[in-house]
Amino acid sequence: MLKVAKFGGSSVSGAEQFRKVRDIVLSDPSRRVVVISAAGKRDPRDHKLTDLLYLCHAHLTYGFPGDDILGAIRERFTSIRDELGLAYRVEDDFDALCARLNRDTSVDELVSRGEYFTSRLMAEFLGYSFIDAADCVFFNFDGQFDREKSDSAIAAALEKHGRIVIPGFYGRSPTGKIKVMSRGGSDITGALAAAALDADVYENWTDVSGILMADPKIVADPRPIQKITFAELRELAYMGASVLHEDSILPVKEKGIPLNIRNTNCPEDPGTMIVESAGEEATEVDRPITGITGRRNFTILTIRKRNITTTQLLRDALELTDHYHAPVEHITLGLDSFALVIASSALESSLYDLISDIHKNCQPDEINVQDGIALVAAVGRKMSSRPGTSGRLFQALGQQGLHIRTIAQGADELSIIVGVDNSDFEKTIRVLYDGFTG
Amino acid sequence: MLKVAKFGGSSVSGAEQFRKVRDIVLSDPSRRVVVISAAGKRDPRDHKLTDLLYLCHAHLTYGFPGDDILGAIRERFTSIRDELGLAYRVEDDFDALCARLNRDTSVDELVSRGEYFTSRLMAEFLGYSFIDAADCVFFNFDGQFDREKSDSAIAAALEKHGRIVIPGFYGRSPTGKIKVMSRGGSDITGALAAAALDADVYENWTDVSGILMADPKIVADPRPIQKITFAELRELAYMGASVLHEDSILPVKEKGIPLNIRNTNCPEDPGTMIVESAGEEATEVDRPITGITGRRNFTILTIRKRNITTTQLLRDALELTDHYHAPVEHITLGLDSFALVIASSALESSLYDLISDIHKNCQPDEINVQDGIALVAAVGRKMSSRPGTSGRLFQALGQQGLHIRTIAQGADELSIIVGVDNSDFEKTIRVLYDGFTG
Repeated sequence: MLKVAKFGGSSVSGAEQFRKVRDIVLSDPSRRVVVISAAGKRDPRDHKLTDLLYLCHAHLTYGFPGDDILGAIRERFTSIRDELGLAYRVEDDFDALCARLNRDTSVDELVSRGEYFTSRLMAEFLGYSFIDAADCVFFNFDGQFDREKSDSAIAAALEKHGRIVIPGFYGRSPTGKIKVMSRGGSDITGALAAAALDADVYENWTDVSGILMADPKIVADPRPIQKITFAELRELAYMGASVLHEDSILPVKEKGIPLNIRNTNCPEDPGTMIVESAGEEATEVDRPITGITGRRNFTILTIRKRNITTTQLLRDALELTDHYHAPVEHITLGLDSFALVIASSALESSLYDLISDIHKNCQPDEINVQDGIALVAAVGRKMSSRPGTSGRLFQALGQQGLHIRTIAQGADELSIIVGVDNSDFEKTIRVLYDGFTG
Repeated sequence: MLKVAKFGGSSVSGAEQFRKVRDIVLSDPSRRVVVISAAGKRDPRDHKLTDLLYLCHAHLTYGFPGDDILGAIRERFTSIRDELGLAYRVEDDFDALCARLNRDTSVDELVSRGEYFTSRLMAEFLGYSFIDAADCVFFNFDGQFDREKSDSAIAAALEKHGRIVIPGFYGRSPTGKIKVMSRGGSDITGALAAAALDADVYENWTDVSGILMADPKIVADPRPIQKITFAELRELAYMGASVLHEDSILPVKEKGIPLNIRNTNCPEDPGTMIVESAGEEATEVDRPITGITGRRNFTILTIRKRNITTTQLLRDALELTDHYHAPVEHITLGLDSFALVIASSALESSLYDLISDIHKNCQPDEINVQDGIALVAAVGRKMSSRPGTSGRLFQALGQQGLHIRTIAQGADELSIIVGVDNSDFEKTIRVLYDGFTG
């Protein structure tokens, strides 16, 4: 049994968090590979190390002294070291880095040091071997990962050292330079390691007890999702939920390795298990809806023309929305009309041109524009096998007097998406949440 | 006040029905224009005059004697005349017609005689003037009506005679020949007359007390619809209901003349009022759903391809469905896929070619074909202002364990359409009917 455990910034923000991480890692001997982010905020007014490092680079760029920032970063590392009674002379390495800094220092190299130093401290604290990501995560010239080279380097490191800590977020380019991933890249490093090692599970430790059924800014204390499929997660992410981005977990998805989102602050919580296929086994709490999310600010374009007998008009209109880079979310066909639902932001600079072009190219009888529409999605793999689900969903909305402007069923019967007025957005999410958890 | 009253075949099938028509017409002095169909069946084993006349023409075409058919037609007219004690020597005109018949007799002229003789008998019985449709309904060379010429001829006839009977179903072509309309064409004649005369209402008398909320072959004793808009009627007709075809009532729709479907056998029933706009006034029974209908045998084509960022693939697929004359009823967009709902009959001869072409032109990752799908539509203008309607609808379906395969909202929030398995078609209609009338 092998578990790859990735700890996010909030899990390593200070000495107290380091202790929680050690308790978690050492409580399970299969947690032999640990991926570490840069230290995050200790409290709401604190700063993430990565932010400070970006700021530091801005100072270098503009040639303005940033000594107090460098001092804050240095102090962060030494205080963790001192509080935990570690031996690593982080200040020596950090000072050597600062002495080397100049206007030409790459931003990637500088910001990657957050993960680097945090991981070195964690490796000593755990008694694990530190493996620099520059020595085991490799990019191709096209910016994609060199999976083969990375996989064998990670596997070799684990085989040689037995228990390893790898910093997240960065790797090495073919020219030998440090290159960082997109924000949240530590998730990718963990997924790469789990896939390289054919881990039994990829644990992603953060500060919530899993993916929540709804946005906690809208629903008070939403329940975590116990189990979710990659396909559901993708649908939730697409429809607006702030969850792991699909790209960041593609390596484990491809290999069918389950991903477990856990809470460093409540390690006893089971968290959310993300799996390829959920199977038919009953879960503890059996809800037809896995999660509820949505996005505001869509526009409905309704185009009317009598005696349409082919899809020519629709195709012409879609060619124009493509031309203006306005992705179409839904299409509703009527007898003499069709409606396109498009994110208003995608039409911001082009709405009038688009309408004018549709008038010119398609000669419709009428174009109607309705903006201020929010799309709310109820996502759930079990919906298709629970005939009553759509009934409960629409009944809940109806009882609260919510006016549904559009209805769409998502792909694979995995979601039902309703369009409501922007002003009803939060209420719609709350009503659906209460309707399926109450 | 002027009412144009059209009586269908079942309303004039025999002497007893003629008496009912007279009672209806004479009970309201504003019923000054009467349009008459050919006599229909008197009982289920009887034959419609029009059918007999078509059969008669087939005999002429093949040169096989049809004297017994001619005799049956003749007897039909004379028995009505005799039972009602009328003077018109219909047998003389009929025998003269028969004497003229030969292989070159046009089918249009022959079948139009059903309406002609029935109307002549009715005109005498009512004491109204008979106006031959050949003298007041005119076609252009393109087969369309010469509305201007027809309108003034109808108006002149009414002005001259005060109370008139016009046979339905036929008119005169620019070459002077009799030309019939499509089956059910008497509805058109009535609508033309009502529009020509700016009637206050166009009454369409038949053998049911209005348009029924659902197919009586599926729902036992369905209730009639009290009031329906032309747009709702169109949606019902499109989705499968056997109701007046839109084209046949276009003249009154254009002029905003209300159309009242009435029952000759129960003249006290108010029937169904078809109006341009229903307004906000409460009706006696206030249901959010006006009618329920549907059609069986649709196919869902699901086309999957990763990383679609434009509508190119969808447009290519739609161009192919157009090419194969397969009209698309609904489009569902997914994250890497889209689904097209198409009548299976439209794909009968082209499904494999279509799929092969989609494979060739669009290179999708996967095409999935699911047939045996029925679409059921709940149509109602009030749905959009009744937030609970979709809830009741889906709740009713869910409670009965019906598996919904697709959901689509129709144009103008006028209908909700669900896709179910063919085997669930009738149950779905019954469940919705009971859910909204119970």
